[in-house]
Amino acid sequence: MLENNTRTSLESLGEFGLITHLTKNIQLHHSNTLKGVGDDAAVVKHGDNCSVITTDLLLEGIHFDLSFFPLKHLGYKAIVVNLSDVYAMNAIPKQVTVSLGISSKFSLEAIEELYAGMLAACEKYQVDLVGGDTTASKQGLVISVTAIGEAKETDLVYRNGAKEFDLVCVSGDLGGAYTGFQLLEREKRVFASNPEVQPDLDGYDYILERQLKPEARKDIVELLKQLDVKPTSMIDISDGLASELFHLASQSNVGITLFEEKIPIDPMTYNTAREMELDPTLTALSGGEDYELLFTIKQADYEKLKNNPDITIIGHVTDAKEGLHMISKSGNKHALKAQGWKAF
Amino acid sequence: MLENNTRTSLESLGEFGLITHLTKNIQLHHSNTLKGVGDDAAVVKHGDNCSVITTDLLLEGIHFDLSFFPLKHLGYKAIVVNLSDVYAMNAIPKQVTVSLGISSKFSLEAIEELYAGMLAACEKYQVDLVGGDTTASKQGLVISVTAIGEAKETDLVYRNGAKEFDLVCVSGDLGGAYTGFQLLEREKRVFASNPEVQPDLDGYDYILERQLKPEARKDIVELLKQLDVKPTSMIDISDGLASELFHLASQSNVGITLFEEKIPIDPMTYNTAREMELDPTLTALSGGEDYELLFTIKQADYEKLKNNPDITIIGHVTDAKEGLHMISKSGNKHALKAQGWKAF
Repeated sequence: MLENNTRTSLESLGEFGLITHLTKNIQLHHSNTLKGVGDDAAVVKHGDNCSVITTDLLLEGIHFDLSFFPLKHLGYKAIVVNLSDVYAMNAIPKQVTVSLGISSKFSLEAIEELYAGMLAACEKYQVDLVGGDTTASKQGLVISVTAIGEAKETDLVYRNGAKEFDLVCVSGDLGGAYTGFQLLEREKRVFASNPEVQPDLDGYDYILERQLKPEARKDIVELLKQLDVKPTSMIDISDGLASELFHLASQSNVGITLFEEKIPIDPMTYNTAREMELDPTLTALSGGEDYELLFTIKQADYEKLKNNPDITIIGHVTDAKEGLHMISKSGNKHALKAQGWKAF
Repeated sequence: MLENNTRTSLESLGEFGLITHLTKNIQLHHSNTLKGVGDDAAVVKHGDNCSVITTDLLLEGIHFDLSFFPLKHLGYKAIVVNLSDVYAMNAIPKQVTVSLGISSKFSLEAIEELYAGMLAACEKYQVDLVGGDTTASKQGLVISVTAIGEAKETDLVYRNGAKEFDLVCVSGDLGGAYTGFQLLEREKRVFASNPEVQPDLDGYDYILERQLKPEARKDIVELLKQLDVKPTSMIDISDGLASELFHLASQSNVGITLFEEKIPIDPMTYNTAREMELDPTLTALSGGEDYELLFTIKQADYEKLKNNPDITIIGHVTDAKEGLHMISKSGNKHALKAQGWKAF
């Protein structure tokens, strides 16, 4: 045990270090708890079917800035980011619970907006809002969502199933949400320094939507089922491609080689990043919040996916000894660094 | 729809009014969602068995005061209050998820204490901690716990099953947690006005434990099963006896008559309440946080429970037209008021 007078800062561990440290001694009591801490969601078995359970905590001032985030969009996003974790298990979300901590600055009408966004997401993804908790908050807005999904045990995809020679795939395109966020931050600064200037956000719809109204890739999970492709491992991209690749690699005990030129980046993301003097590749690697699915498939499944416009093969799985690398556009090999969002 | 310029304060609705207002238009999409918002927990069916799901949000400065709440006890209590909701469905909790928002004032050692309390509760109640989320908080400590339990569909007990002539029962004794809280508040004020004075808490162990380390009544759920008594309705007492009686009565569409002299109050609770010039009965009716089980049984089950020291029959169920009343010790009939904890 640590001495009482020891004081270790949380910053020195980081979010993932803290979770690993706190959860390393957890003992499971029930044989139907198939998966505890450490994947996109926990898994509990009931007969042939499994429930997957995932939860996310969103705090004002940390995860969202109400000066530019419309409450309705925030509600929508709060649901979607949890559903995304369920899809990342190759499962279908069915229920959500929502807890809100609300400070007195909010009116009923404001909370109705937030709730309308949540219910719109529930409607779109056919999920039941089944419960929650509502309380006063002395500080900012607190949103805690738990999502529960369903899958056959044999359909579940974990983070730890990637094997050497598998192909690394990603859905959609990356870096848009972060670029949209940077754009909103820039316009906020301009507005703060001169309130006469109106925000100039015209023509940036795609990246703003990526930030303010992301979608979860239900369609990809359905497509994979249709094509009879079961990924060998899967995770959703909430913290950035690099960070998620590290999770897949460490949990599967493999290495990964990524090709920079293959990383899918939308032209608007690319051009806006450049305009703001951001490196588009770095934006895709470390920006986060894209909520795309990152997964690995067996080479035998390549033919089924190769022509799909929504899925890009960005690399391959290697032996663990090889580590994580990116081959740059100029052909150089760089060690990849996980630069996920720092929580502390 | 409300106009944009309307601004209704949340205070005018109260916690339950807000929840009712926000959730009244929820549509359920899945036939296996047996119960949504409105009970101690939501219910999802899987074959013959059901999952029950409940969640609670605990915020620093609203639900707990770290100046007198040890972190280890807080962790323990955060788990227990959720398990209590599962037991109130006559179900057995199996898994929990825990999300934490942590401000930079906390050291790793402090969070380890909090977590140790959570894991102690998980061990005691044989529950698996299966996941969660950990993030920075700009404000105080945020704790969100979701508990998942299991029961056969036929064993589940809802709030809405009470029938006229049923007997109203409560486990344990009431008012202790609130009296303990008042005692801690008093010592805090004394300390604030003169830091030389040490808190005088000797001899108050029972009520301090009721506040700082409550237990959930797993034993009562097991006892009822053993005695082959299935309550007709059940709820746990988190907001105070009066408030919970109102929930049972309104959801079951019945009235309830309560006898003041039957309300179980521990002598230490009684004496300390008097010492602090609190009405012991009011403390039991409105104090909250006792986490005892309040339930109704058929008269036919009376013989099975009548001699049990852990269960007290405090009243009976009437026709809805009769409303909610308390017969005072002096024999007068008073209309009962729900004075649960006000969230806003």
